[in-house]
Order: sequence, then C-alpha cells, then structure tokens
Amino acid sequence: MTQLEKVQQWVAEQHLDIAYISNPESIQYLTGFASDPIERVLALFVFPDHDPFIFAPALEVEAVKDTGWKFPVYGYLDHEPAFDMIAGYIKQINPNPIHWGIEKESLTVDRFDLIKNQFNNADFEKNVTPVVQNLRLIKTSSEIAKLDAAGREADFAFEVGFNAIAEGKSEADVAAELEFALKKRGVMNMSFDTLVQAGAHAAEPHGATGLNKIEKNELILFDLGTVHEGYISDSSRTVAFGTLNDKQKDIYDVCLEAQLTAQAAAKPGMVAEDLDKLARDIISKAGYGEYFIHRLGHGMGMGEHEFPSIMEGNKMVLQEGMCFSIEPGIYIPGVAGVRIEDCVHITKDGAEPFTHTSKELKYIN
Amino acid sequence: MTQLEKVQQWVAEQHLDIAYISNPESIQYLTGFASDPIERVLALFVFPDHDPFIFAPALEVEAVKDTGWKFPVYGYLDHEPAFDMIAGYIKQINPNPIHWGIEKESLTVDRFDLIKNQFNNADFEKNVTPVVQNLRLIKTSSEIAKLDAAGREADFAFEVGFNAIAEGKSEADVAAELEFALKKRGVMNMSFDTLVQAGAHAAEPHGATGLNKIEKNELILFDLGTVHEGYISDSSRTVAFGTLNDKQKDIYDVCLEAQLTAQAAAKPGMVAEDLDKLARDIISKAGYGEYFIHRLGHGMGMGEHEFPSIMEGNKMVLQEGMCFSIEPGIYIPGVAGVRIEDCVHITKDGAEPFTHTSKELKYIN
Repeated sequence: MTQLEKVQQWVAEQHLDIAYISNPESIQYLTGFASDPIERVLALFVFPDHDPFIFAPALEVEAVKDTGWKFPVYGYLDHEPAFDMIAGYIKQINPNPIHWGIEKESLTVDRFDLIKNQFNNADFEKNVTPVVQNLRLIKTSSEIAKLDAAGREADFAFEVGFNAIAEGKSEADVAAELEFALKKRGVMNMSFDTLVQAGAHAAEPHGATGLNKIEKNELILFDLGTVHEGYISDSSRTVAFGTLNDKQKDIYDVCLEAQLTAQAAAKPGMVAEDLDKLARDIISKAGYGEYFIHRLGHGMGMGEHEFPSIMEGNKMVLQEGMCFSIEPGIYIPGVAGVRIEDCVHITKDGAEPFTHTSKELKYIN
Repeated sequence: MTQLEKVQQWVAEQHLDIAYISNPESIQYLTGFASDPIERVLALFVFPDHDPFIFAPALEVEAVKDTGWKFPVYGYLDHEPAFDMIAGYIKQINPNPIHWGIEKESLTVDRFDLIKNQFNNADFEKNVTPVVQNLRLIKTSSEIAKLDAAGREADFAFEVGFNAIAEGKSEADVAAELEFALKKRGVMNMSFDTLVQAGAHAAEPHGATGLNKIEKNELILFDLGTVHEGYISDSSRTVAFGTLNDKQKDIYDVCLEAQLTAQAAAKPGMVAEDLDKLARDIISKAGYGEYFIHRLGHGMGMGEHEFPSIMEGNKMVLQEGMCFSIEPGIYIPGVAGVRIEDCVHITKDGAEPFTHTSKELKYIN
C-alpha cells in the first residue's frame, strides 16, 4: 500500500468525504511531486472511494505528469479563480461533500475561508496534519537510503571545509569553498544556509556566516547539510584552529560527552524527553546548563521540522525508523560556541548516524 | 512615522484592540528582525495605545535586541506553552481584547484556533495581510537602494556565468562557478536556486539546474538573484552558445521585443493587466502565445511574492515606488526556452531596472 493509499484508507475509516492536502511537503511526500508554489495554489484532494486529483499552477502540470502521477492533474492560469475551479472539480466527484479533513497546521485562514465559502454546509473538524506527520515519522528503507546519501555529502563538505581553514580567510570564504566543491559534484541544494562561525561569533546559535576573518586559537563551528532526492542532511562539527585554552577545551569536552552519551543511549522504547534530559544533565552538571538554550534535537527527513522533537515535555516513545538530530550546544556570549550534531535513525536496538565525520576534537594548524 | 507606527495607526483607526502579526516577513519588514522560525512561534502584537511586543523562541531574543528593538521581547523555551504565555502578556496590556486583526493569508488554522481558545468572545474579522502588503507595495528610497545593490550583484553573477560557459561543462558547473564568485565577495544567499538550463531543458520554466553537459548551438537560460540586506534581485538572461538556427533566433527576438516594449511602457498610471497584455500580444501575434504560460511579472522586494502581480485580471494602477519583474518567456517543449527578465521600480515617469546586463542576444563561442 502506498503512503497515499494509507491516507485514502484513513479518509474512509474516518467517514470523511474528502481530504484537502495543502502543504507542498505533504504533496511531495504522498505523490513524489516537489514544488514550492509560493503564493500560487497547489492542492491534492483525496476521496474515500474515488481517485485523487492534483490542482496545480498551469506551468507545473507537465512536471506533475513527469513524476509518473497516474491520476488527474488540473492546471489553472494566474488570472483564473482557483477555488471556483477546485469546487467544480470536486463536485464532479461528489456534489456535496460534508465531512472534510484539512491540514490545520499549514492551511492558511484565508484559503480555509475560500473553501468554506464554496461548501457552506460542510464541517472541517478533522485535522490531516498529524496523519501525514505520523506517516512521515517512520522512515522506509528507501527514505533511509536517501538520508544516508545526503549524510555522505555532508561528510564530504566537512572534509573540504576543514581543509579550507587558513589565516586570512573569512567565514564566507570557507563556506563558499565547501559549497563550490559540492556543486561541482552536482549537489546543488543545501538544506539550509551553511554556517561557518568562528570564535565568539559561534555563540549566536542562529547567527550567520560572515565576512569576518578567521583567527588563530579559536573554535570554528560548522553547521551544514545538503538535499539528496528531496531528503536532507544536517550536521554540525566544531574544530580548533591553532591551540585552545582550558575554557574552550572544557566547553568542547562537555558538549562532546553530552552528544556521545545521548547518541549511544538512543534506542527503541526510550522516551524523547529522557534523551534530552540525559544530554542536558551532563551539560548542567558541568555548570553550562544556562548556555544550552535549545532542545536536544528535531525530527528530520524531507525537512528539518519533522517529528520527533527531542525535548522536555515530549513523551513520544522512540521507534525503529524515526530520524532526528542529536545536537547539544553550549553558547557563551562573547567567548565561544560549540555544537556537535549527528542526525540518526533508530534501528532495532540503537541508533545509526547519517554522518560519520569524527567528533573527536580536531586541531587545524 | 515608521512603518510599524503606520500599522499602529491603522489599528487605532479601525477601533481594533490588537493586531497579531504572524508572518516572519511582515515582522522583518516592521521591526528589522529577520528570522525563519520554522515551526516555532514568532509573533508581533500591536496595540492602539500601548507599546507593541515581540514573542519569540528564547534563542532568538538576543538577536531581536541586536536589531535595536526598543520594546519588550519575550522568549519561550521549546517545551513551554507558547499560546498560554502569549495570552498572559496580552492580558497584562488589555485584559479582554475583543476586536482583533490577524494576517489571514499567513496565519494557519491551528494557530488561529489556539488564539481563539484563549480569547473566546473576540472577533477576528479584520485582515492585516493587505495592510502590511500595501505598506510593502511602495518602496522607500532606502529599500530601492538595497534592491539596486542586489541588482548589481546579479549583474556580476551573469558576467561570471557567461564567462564560465564552455563545452564539456554541465549546467551545474556554471551555476557553481557563479555562486562561488558571489560567496567569495560575501554574497552568501541567493534569493532562489540558481537556474542554468541549456537547450530543450530550458523549456521547463520551473525545472532545475542539472548535471547534463552544455552543448554547442543551444540557447542557455540563466535565472538568478541574490539577497542584499534582506532585499532580493531576480533576473533572467538567455544567451547563445555557438550559432543558432532561425527558429531559436526567432523565439529570442520575439521574447526580447515583448520584454523591451513592456519595460519601455511601464510608468505611473498604467494598469497592471495592460502591461501584461502589451507583452503577451507581441508573443501571440508571432504565433507563440500558447508557449507563454505564466504572468508577465510578480511584485518583489524582500521576496518574490509581493504585489503588484502583472497579470490578466489585475486592475491595480502602477505607482511610483512599485517594484516588479518584467519577464516574458517562450517555452517550446523539446525545442528551447527563452526568458528575459529585469525587475524594475516605477519612477516619476517610467521604470528603472535594477539589473543592467545587456539584453541584446549575446553569442558565446
């Protein structure tokens, strides 16, 4: 049974007349068609006992067919009334669908109003967001193969990036060199803006790569990832340029212990928040708790905002096939920032990382 | 009066108690704080007669302050109940806000439900989306200066890209070289994935740069842009590698005539759809109407999905300070694709492009 058929089965089990899938990532996951329609309308409609259809901007219709989509796809031009047309196509299948499922966590209020206006007497109680999220939560072996491939690309990027470090170069130079090496291999898309942050700059966990020159005796933080056939990598390493003082070394050692301990402990049956606590306790006991200001990890797969979230309050039990980051960080303003991160998938009895670049403190001279 | 004060003024004029700004781009526009919170909550609340506040992930609080934000900013940790906290901060200012403005075109149904649950007897009729959009529609001179700077970066990218074309190279090689040259200059962010498409590949207007080798006697389409201090460039050029046959030349000439005619005609007082028609008629008259399958242009500024949209059905009258693309394209499946694009801003009596790379057909050998 395909993932799309599982959604169709859910629609039937819930006695829904229709499900409106509006999130482009969900559509990619269920149909293989990847697109960022920006403000244009892209939608997938699923029925309990009828073929689904895709509604897309006209200029995407050929691309939908190219994915091997076997069901109808309807295009619209920019000036055409998309929701009138959608209602027309739906009514050909069911003249009066009453019970709807919608993706509440991505559908916007204005589009919800447009659909409600077309179907006045319908109810929209059911939320499809968790249904698709739950499917995406457990990765298939073919998804894990893509995540592995993306991880190998990230490992290659680290190798290039570490070799690029030299006095007189900026953070931007190093990021440019590693991305260039990837692009020459045909890896065209980073999964997010590559971070290279040196010294105190790395204490801004959501800062950006800058034109500031890298200096000796600093820690340099890399956070990067690629996209491989729609699946991402996301990994962080922090390396030493020159020598380190005791404080810098201590921060690194504590962060590494937290990361290695959590990664060794992750396995089926464990509760997500307990994994966060395991890493957090190590950092807190060392006196850096206040500087670890984000959750231990986030789910990942097609994007970096999937489940499970590895954080306090999340009682989700880890299962084989779940994929997430393990990324403790210690950010001391004005001093230094360290983050060490692998994304892993839960196996039968543990966790396997997608990236394999050594996490032992690496000195570059 | 700042743009944020204009929103506050609107809130007062509409007799609203509060406006909930949820779109990260709106928050960036109104406060200077740029962030992609992904699934985390980022919000700006505006009151008629009280200071606004920002609610943000804890790890963003310092970055908000760094922008010079003079009003309160409240952080939350990942495991904390964001909407309970938001309600608490709002009630300190107004114990029972009744009349709300929300951004209907970006607020999701689930977050709308979360807010409604906190404020049961409130009404949420007013839409803030068009208010912010209308402010963003007319660019200030400082915004135009940033768009000009981004345009110069795109011109530099074309120069590098054209020089990189050579037999044996792939589309990806050319894209990698131009992005590398930009990054070495500190231009870290493209505004979208750089497109280099050769030959028939360019007939997929939303296709991607590939590993296929560039061959002689083909048209090669570039579509690229950068981000400069939060403002984008977006420009397309199509060049000839080797010699062209009559069909290829004809497509180029027709597309160029449409582009030049529209760009020369754009000025205050013109209606958006008339500008689209001007270009479209030229292409249709030449027999390629069915191959021009998108609108003539889109508004731009901080992103590529602003107003005005230059398309059939849009009666918006162009005014000084509006910024948009003029990008006719002709895509003949299996044959070739041509797109020629400048983004422009409307001046007192015409339109000025942000990019200045020649649009005359360029032959590369």
